[in-house]
Amino acid sequence: MKYLFEPRGIAIIGASHNTRKLGYLLIENILAGGYPGKIYPVNPRGGEILGLKVYPDISSVDGEIDVAAIVIPAENVLDAVRECVGKRVRYGIVITSGFSDVGRISEENEIAMYARANGMRILGPNVLGYYSAASSLNLTFGMQNISPGPVAVISQSGGLGVALTGMPEIKSLGLSAFFSVGNKSDIDDSDLLEYITEDSRTRVVIIYMEGLRDGYRFVKVLKKLSAVKPVIIVKSGGSEKGARAAASHTGSLACPDDLFAAVMKQCNVLRTDSLHEAIDWAAFFARVDLPRRHNTLVITNGGGLGVIVTDAMEKRHIPLYDCQDDLKATFEPIISRLGSFRNPVDITSDFTHETFSRIVRAGIDNGNIDAILIIHCQVDFCDIDMIAGVVAESYLYARSAGKILIFTAFGNESIDGAVAFLRERDVPVFDDFLRGVSCLDALYAYCRRRAMDPGREIRLLDQGSAGAAAGPIIDRAAGEKRDFLLAGESAEILKAAGIGMPERGIAFNENEAAGVASKVGYPVAMKIVSPDILHKTDAGGVVLNVKNREEAEKAFNLIRENCLRHYPGMRFAGIEVCRMEEPGLEMIIGARRDAVLGPVVMCGLGGIYVEVLRDVSFLSFPATKNEISAMLRDLKSYPLLAGTRGKKPVDIGSVTDTVIKVGEILLLSPLITDIELNPVFVYEKGLKAVDSRIMIRT
Amino acid sequence: MKYLFEPRGIAIIGASHNTRKLGYLLIENILAGGYPGKIYPVNPRGGEILGLKVYPDISSVDGEIDVAAIVIPAENVLDAVRECVGKRVRYGIVITSGFSDVGRISEENEIAMYARANGMRILGPNVLGYYSAASSLNLTFGMQNISPGPVAVISQSGGLGVALTGMPEIKSLGLSAFFSVGNKSDIDDSDLLEYITEDSRTRVVIIYMEGLRDGYRFVKVLKKLSAVKPVIIVKSGGSEKGARAAASHTGSLACPDDLFAAVMKQCNVLRTDSLHEAIDWAAFFARVDLPRRHNTLVITNGGGLGVIVTDAMEKRHIPLYDCQDDLKATFEPIISRLGSFRNPVDITSDFTHETFSRIVRAGIDNGNIDAILIIHCQVDFCDIDMIAGVVAESYLYARSAGKILIFTAFGNESIDGAVAFLRERDVPVFDDFLRGVSCLDALYAYCRRRAMDPGREIRLLDQGSAGAAAGPIIDRAAGEKRDFLLAGESAEILKAAGIGMPERGIAFNENEAAGVASKVGYPVAMKIVSPDILHKTDAGGVVLNVKNREEAEKAFNLIRENCLRHYPGMRFAGIEVCRMEEPGLEMIIGARRDAVLGPVVMCGLGGIYVEVLRDVSFLSFPATKNEISAMLRDLKSYPLLAGTRGKKPVDIGSVTDTVIKVGEILLLSPLITDIELNPVFVYEKGLKAVDSRIMIRT
Repeated sequence: MKYLFEPRGIAIIGASHNTRKLGYLLIENILAGGYPGKIYPVNPRGGEILGLKVYPDISSVDGEIDVAAIVIPAENVLDAVRECVGKRVRYGIVITSGFSDVGRISEENEIAMYARANGMRILGPNVLGYYSAASSLNLTFGMQNISPGPVAVISQSGGLGVALTGMPEIKSLGLSAFFSVGNKSDIDDSDLLEYITEDSRTRVVIIYMEGLRDGYRFVKVLKKLSAVKPVIIVKSGGSEKGARAAASHTGSLACPDDLFAAVMKQCNVLRTDSLHEAIDWAAFFARVDLPRRHNTLVITNGGGLGVIVTDAMEKRHIPLYDCQDDLKATFEPIISRLGSFRNPVDITSDFTHETFSRIVRAGIDNGNIDAILIIHCQVDFCDIDMIAGVVAESYLYARSAGKILIFTAFGNESIDGAVAFLRERDVPVFDDFLRGVSCLDALYAYCRRRAMDPGREIRLLDQGSAGAAAGPIIDRAAGEKRDFLLAGESAEILKAAGIGMPERGIAFNENEAAGVASKVGYPVAMKIVSPDILHKTDAGGVVLNVKNREEAEKAFNLIRENCLRHYPGMRFAGIEVCRMEEPGLEMIIGARRDAVLGPVVMCGLGGIYVEVLRDVSFLSFPATKNEISAMLRDLKSYPLLAGTRGKKPVDIGSVTDTVIKVGEILLLSPLITDIELNPVFVYEKGLKAVDSRIMIRT
Repeated sequence: MKYLFEPRGIAIIGASHNTRKLGYLLIENILAGGYPGKIYPVNPRGGEILGLKVYPDISSVDGEIDVAAIVIPAENVLDAVRECVGKRVRYGIVITSGFSDVGRISEENEIAMYARANGMRILGPNVLGYYSAASSLNLTFGMQNISPGPVAVISQSGGLGVALTGMPEIKSLGLSAFFSVGNKSDIDDSDLLEYITEDSRTRVVIIYMEGLRDGYRFVKVLKKLSAVKPVIIVKSGGSEKGARAAASHTGSLACPDDLFAAVMKQCNVLRTDSLHEAIDWAAFFARVDLPRRHNTLVITNGGGLGVIVTDAMEKRHIPLYDCQDDLKATFEPIISRLGSFRNPVDITSDFTHETFSRIVRAGIDNGNIDAILIIHCQVDFCDIDMIAGVVAESYLYARSAGKILIFTAFGNESIDGAVAFLRERDVPVFDDFLRGVSCLDALYAYCRRRAMDPGREIRLLDQGSAGAAAGPIIDRAAGEKRDFLLAGESAEILKAAGIGMPERGIAFNENEAAGVASKVGYPVAMKIVSPDILHKTDAGGVVLNVKNREEAEKAFNLIRENCLRHYPGMRFAGIEVCRMEEPGLEMIIGARRDAVLGPVVMCGLGGIYVEVLRDVSFLSFPATKNEISAMLRDLKSYPLLAGTRGKKPVDIGSVTDTVIKVGEILLLSPLITDIELNPVFVYEKGLKAVDSRIMIRT
């Protein structure tokens, strides 16, 4: 992507003499931005625009062109791309909209595929352009006076990206890069993020996204990126109507929102629904160094605010520093007798410039405290300018001591001046203390996850033997145009993978049924096996809790007769006889290919209660053992796994192994779309996948 | 409370000549506020303050004093109150702090009790004073230039209250009343809210609260108040550390946060953790009329913002108007061909003053649309002043049509002027569209609940017979200093209340045990009954699943022997023989007296899974049938009650009745502290309370 970020020559296809047209505004912006390379306006009418020679077509340009911006009507874009290929242009920026965003998907695909096949990459269509600090290149319309700085922004919506980068908090920091990626027919977030990962200008990344194509690659790229710099994502289109709106905005596919959220967490990407929160986080991250510990002190002159902020911090598990002896020794000598040395330190309204300053310094000097949140409550007799002065000094002192200091002020308009004064001095300052709490929360969460040993991706399956088992079974099912595997087929694959299964066998007559049953041990479940029957229960093809030989023989005949009555021509592939296991903790474990995110594994508590409460969690696969452990701990019902109310813990290790194995089975064949083990009975030692389902693509 | 809000004469006990002391500032504020009644400064030194004669003591004042503000050291407050009583002062405002807020609880109680016994009421101690528009009375320090208006504020924290009322959104509206209620030794929120309910000046109420004393009365007052005007509450101290901070700030007791949240919902009080959100809601409510329907339209020039806002609205169940034919007919003719007539209506950047104006008007003119949210995304080539002009005109038009219009703008600092321009014109305008969504959500939630028929409080118990059953049992247990009822005792009370229970009987020998068992029907559970044994299982006093006469006789002897071994001197009150019921949907139903909120009932799904997931809901009791139905629907697991995945619904009516009965049993005797039916098996018809526990105060 180097020549996209640092192009040597740029062509504007559709350059215009009309000062209100995009083909003019683009050139104006490039010039104003100070881009040092060559600029080639292209327009059959020729002439000159803004002092630059206009070329009648791209082939008549004599220099090297790395990037061509295309701003001509949709129906002419493919021809322009053909000409660009002829000129060996590396990147086409298709600003023109009216492709998949209005349902014209095949036209868009044709352009992208043609370009790709001929060594050219496409950004867009339906984009606003991009900015790259690496070459002072402002190839956008609608954005002016961009300063270089530490924030990289990738936005699927052009207008939103412009508005976001125009927000004072971002503008004052400056941008390392801005990309409007629109319909993402070719170049997507992943391509750009690979460059940004290495780019030393960028300290923090904001992504606005409605959809993506290759989620599998996106996950890999994000993991690498978040290991070196924080990434903030706003992903919309997660709701039903939101997905519809996204489809008509950028032609994006929907992805279940809980799945996306879980995978972003796995990637240590910070996600929020609020653009303002994303901006707050980015501005905060761009300014602070990552703290190693997270002991936080609150200093306030408003006892009520102190109580609210304590609630807010506890809700988010932000550690309020809590050593009472230390707090007492540090603050009791210097605060009012009506105040409180406890954390929050309540200094009441009884303080002077000197005592306030001493209190804040005492917090900074205390070696156990890593971050200080000053929550100011403005009342008329309080000198806010004095407060701001102390905070500005203390901030410098805190920075020199490697500590975080945040100031928030609540009250009448007299605080506006103080807020502006402190903002100019780069102090993290908010009019709402919950914004400060949110920033600390995001920072700590990012640090915690980053400090976590990522662990290796483990491989548990003997690919050879598992693959050998799966291959012929899947081929046979596909050959029969079945989209599901038979019970025995699924069981064979899962058993080859070493997943705990009840003992079972197939019987073709009454006598065999009783034989298998006595071999696996009573009681047993008996189920029809037939490539013609998916819904076995509806066909009367299941009998549970068969207790002895007599019942087994009876059940065999009953099942066969029932099924033949429902499906007169059914192909009879036997009756499965399966040991009924002792109930354990009922879980569900699965894997599937998500249309957007690719292979994912899933785990949760089973049973009808929990299906209604939907306590499940997801991961992109392959995943590391640590990621799977974190996924399990995210379950609200995790205490049941870990042991609660006098119950012993279940075998979490075997759950982890089974999740990995199920993910690996999914990867064995691209035909497998869905694996579900439900229920899985998990015991103090081991587990049994009592029922399973494997779906394939036909 | 009339003479508190409209006093005829006010004394300031502790009036001061020192212009920096509270005793001076108070008088200055009263005078500046334009209070028309008499003002009597009291100070033994006499003289004059701000032109007012100073009285050496309160008894030397010749006029009527309704209110006395007390600003003298804590140790002298009781004496001052005594003098006030002598002068027949109605209300004492104890501004002085240093009572329960620093642990001096008995001193505070002594003052409050003395005053109360002598016909005087106390506000405080530890308050900042109060403001009443009814008499232009600013009896505060730290608040100046208060304008009268529609917002009433009650704050337990003085400083927070001052800062909150100073916020521009509130200040520009003006106040009907402001009360700092501090430690609430006597006058509390309920007293003030009764006046405010009737006060025609007040359109909306904001309460900041850390704790309360009489939650039972508070609930009754809130229900009446919210039926006529919206109430917004910020309640802190819900977390463990927050509760500790609240205790040291205003000496408040903790109340479980989920319980408080549920009861506020029952009262149709809007609760938030964010002061800024509370302010947004209040300012919004003060300006709009309540809509009857809630069909909402979003108009945006930013497709990306449209997608995010759609997600946010769907998440909050805000109805986006969805009739595609109507939307098409209304908007397709007037928007750009690249836009979308679907809701959100995406007008893209391709519009003029005239088309924008026509689009907004078309939305207002559409009879199916009740509220319009305009989400503006600022890009450099967009004329924000033109936008603001159209919005200002459209707002007036929308108001005249009885419709809601909200404007939000996102982008660079050029929007600031437009926001200020519209704010001056009273348009609900926000820099973050999520704030606008939050306001609509709060408004719709308030309207929905208010429109709900409150229903009558129903009485199911025959108080006479249930009371007759409960009375002697509770007396006996209390006499024996037991804090629990025996199984048979609980069962007798619950049965008298008509709650479904398994058949049971008490047996005193083997033969009786078998007799009872065959009468109630096998299988049975058998349990020791002894006033000396609470934890029956630990003593070996329980045998389950007894299947026949032989087992029943064996179990009887086994239980007696086990228990005698554990409790050699145990009093043997027989062995309970109880039919084992078929499992149904496992629920838990209970009632208890909360230290803060008083009698509450509780209901949730039972079983160990759900205990970990904590899916329970609460109500203040007495409650109406509608409130109980709403409580059940609030359970995440409600689909299991209502029938899901092919399962039939359970008997919700019998659950409702049982909740009411359990609440009524609690009210039968003030000695009952806790009732828990767990598990309750609920069937398609009826339910059985399989196990129960009633705790009493000893």
